[in-house]
Amino acid sequence: MVSEKMYQLGSNRSAIRELFEYGKMRAEIVGKENVYDFSLGNPALPPPQAVEDALIDLLKNEPAIAVHGYTSAQGDAGVRAAIANYLNQTYQTNFHKDNFYMTCGAAASLTICLRAIIEKEDDEVIVIAPFFPEYRLFAEAAGGKVIIVPPDMQHFQIHMEKLAEMITARTKAVIINSPNNPSGAVYSVETITALCKLLNKKSKENGRPIVLISDEPYREIVYDGLDVPYLTKYYANTVVCYSFSKSLSLPGERIGYILVPDEMEESGKVYAAVCGAGRVMGYVCAPSLFQKVVGRCIGQTSDIETYKRNRDLLYDGLRTIGYRCVKPQGAFYLFLKALEPDAAAFCEMGKKYDLLMVPGDSFGCPGYVRLSYCVDGEMIRRSLTAFQKLWNEYLKMK
Amino acid sequence: MVSEKMYQLGSNRSAIRELFEYGKMRAEIVGKENVYDFSLGNPALPPPQAVEDALIDLLKNEPAIAVHGYTSAQGDAGVRAAIANYLNQTYQTNFHKDNFYMTCGAAASLTICLRAIIEKEDDEVIVIAPFFPEYRLFAEAAGGKVIIVPPDMQHFQIHMEKLAEMITARTKAVIINSPNNPSGAVYSVETITALCKLLNKKSKENGRPIVLISDEPYREIVYDGLDVPYLTKYYANTVVCYSFSKSLSLPGERIGYILVPDEMEESGKVYAAVCGAGRVMGYVCAPSLFQKVVGRCIGQTSDIETYKRNRDLLYDGLRTIGYRCVKPQGAFYLFLKALEPDAAAFCEMGKKYDLLMVPGDSFGCPGYVRLSYCVDGEMIRRSLTAFQKLWNEYLKMK
Repeated sequence: MVSEKMYQLGSNRSAIRELFEYGKMRAEIVGKENVYDFSLGNPALPPPQAVEDALIDLLKNEPAIAVHGYTSAQGDAGVRAAIANYLNQTYQTNFHKDNFYMTCGAAASLTICLRAIIEKEDDEVIVIAPFFPEYRLFAEAAGGKVIIVPPDMQHFQIHMEKLAEMITARTKAVIINSPNNPSGAVYSVETITALCKLLNKKSKENGRPIVLISDEPYREIVYDGLDVPYLTKYYANTVVCYSFSKSLSLPGERIGYILVPDEMEESGKVYAAVCGAGRVMGYVCAPSLFQKVVGRCIGQTSDIETYKRNRDLLYDGLRTIGYRCVKPQGAFYLFLKALEPDAAAFCEMGKKYDLLMVPGDSFGCPGYVRLSYCVDGEMIRRSLTAFQKLWNEYLKMK
Repeated sequence: MVSEKMYQLGSNRSAIRELFEYGKMRAEIVGKENVYDFSLGNPALPPPQAVEDALIDLLKNEPAIAVHGYTSAQGDAGVRAAIANYLNQTYQTNFHKDNFYMTCGAAASLTICLRAIIEKEDDEVIVIAPFFPEYRLFAEAAGGKVIIVPPDMQHFQIHMEKLAEMITARTKAVIINSPNNPSGAVYSVETITALCKLLNKKSKENGRPIVLISDEPYREIVYDGLDVPYLTKYYANTVVCYSFSKSLSLPGERIGYILVPDEMEESGKVYAAVCGAGRVMGYVCAPSLFQKVVGRCIGQTSDIETYKRNRDLLYDGLRTIGYRCVKPQGAFYLFLKALEPDAAAFCEMGKKYDLLMVPGDSFGCPGYVRLSYCVDGEMIRRSLTAFQKLWNEYLKMK
């Protein structure tokens, strides 16, 4: 009756979604304040005031037909120009409006980009563990084959030797995600430089460019004044997949973009293929009101200080107890070493204390668990007692 | 470097889009008021006041995190329940919230639905001419093969004998669109009854159900008190693909739904496959603010009387001159018989008088042209002089 594959994908709920539902059920039994749900990457902060101001102004003062009407498939020209200007000022780049294709958020950016560039069945897409699990589905749905580079467990940068080994003549693209979900790591300039050197060398060997897909919904969410290198400046064949979901706390509104820089080989052809892929997948245009909103709010962010306070509270609290983890530099995830090799079993044990954590296995990194700290700070504070109890439980077992 | 197919699709602009750009260029030369652009199906009316009220109320009085946050992939449960209630009251159906999957508009509804149900390479999808040209791309992108039933030139209903001949064991789905773009026809109860009888018979012969995909963004845009039969009541294996783009004049906001009725064979499996297809294509959820808006405005429409006045003005005007066309019963298109067999040549001749019309060829119906009358009524009035001149031009040639 239906595609068996689509049926399987639609009926197997993601582990994260299962946990979230479990948390709601537990909250009814023990009370919402006694469940410590670190499962979902749903921003806990409202959008900045500029977003609400832009919405009201557009609705009250602009003609409704223009505000809610179709834009071109590429997106509103003024909005794309505003994004180009902002990036040029911030990163000393040379983009113009026609480098941008507005999308319905990061997932759409990735699926459209992959559909555009994958040419044939055996094209390989390399992902770097730990990685967002949907990458695999997106690449496979576009006809590609996913190759996973094992994690650099020390610093959660890129295991460059492994990557070098895994690039073949079939390698079409490498997806990176920095600041990273789930590790919270930000790839350093050294990492990026080494990566780009490798990709240039291998592209030359292959006689066709390897596309670097930079999935960066967390670009602005970084701490301690850290810089996130702008990829197109390091590697010409970079496509940037961006979303405003996290920076502006608009995850449900589905708004982002694909950036195809002029520097890219056959840049015009890549951009046209992006338009073609968006078209066949039914993405007529990105939501028009929110295109205009992000155009006006470009450069604004939600209150990142709150996420930083959460990070410090959780990281310091867990380290004081004795847990091991790399200090997150960006995004709003902390990647904790489980207290036993089986992360799923550790998460089950955590549930005893109503701590909801996501096993790292689906991110390609067994033995770790992901904690989303885009939550209420008070919940983090209360959760530390539960984390202490969990620690004691494992201590007793030794 | 890229998928050749996506590149082709992205670089060949649609004929309609080309015309629209041409119209803008002409407007700069001869003045906006002297260009009669009937090319685009972009609603010329603002959304009903209820939409603006709902937007302002949601933004002012509901928590921003909930308004702009992720909904479940299926869509907000309250919104889906509101849609079910409305349809049940209006059409005496028995839907519930879990029959609905919210989408980013009609194109997304169709691409997701096709991806969900197409099982293998040689699955055939039948479309009835005249038809919306993107159907072909959507079906092919989902892995299907498109079979075109030639038009019923008399009434623009369905050429039932031809359809019967073209259904094979490989037929997976039939897409219909009533009220129809581009003909303006509404399929009568007789047409629907005959269609469903045929589909039931053929499904039985095939040993697997043929899915009827009802693409109905124009459901509410009908004139003269006409009823549009509700398909699930006539044929169990119907999937409804709906959009609020036209009914609420929100084409750029990308909001619609897929309805999988309980009556359908393996209904739960079909619904799960829809969820799976949406997931792999990167449709995380439908835009959250507009989900809530349509939930509140369900049953409302833009001012359809205006479209009716436009229809009457254009139809009566053209008939008075001597043109031939079937009177549109719904949507906002009039399908005019060209004054020569080559519709593209007729459209070129029209340009001489700054009449912008779309040849019917891409809709699978040569010899006709589509006029979109979702335009300013005054423009229609002024255009009639140009249509008279065009008529005279052909008269001279005889």
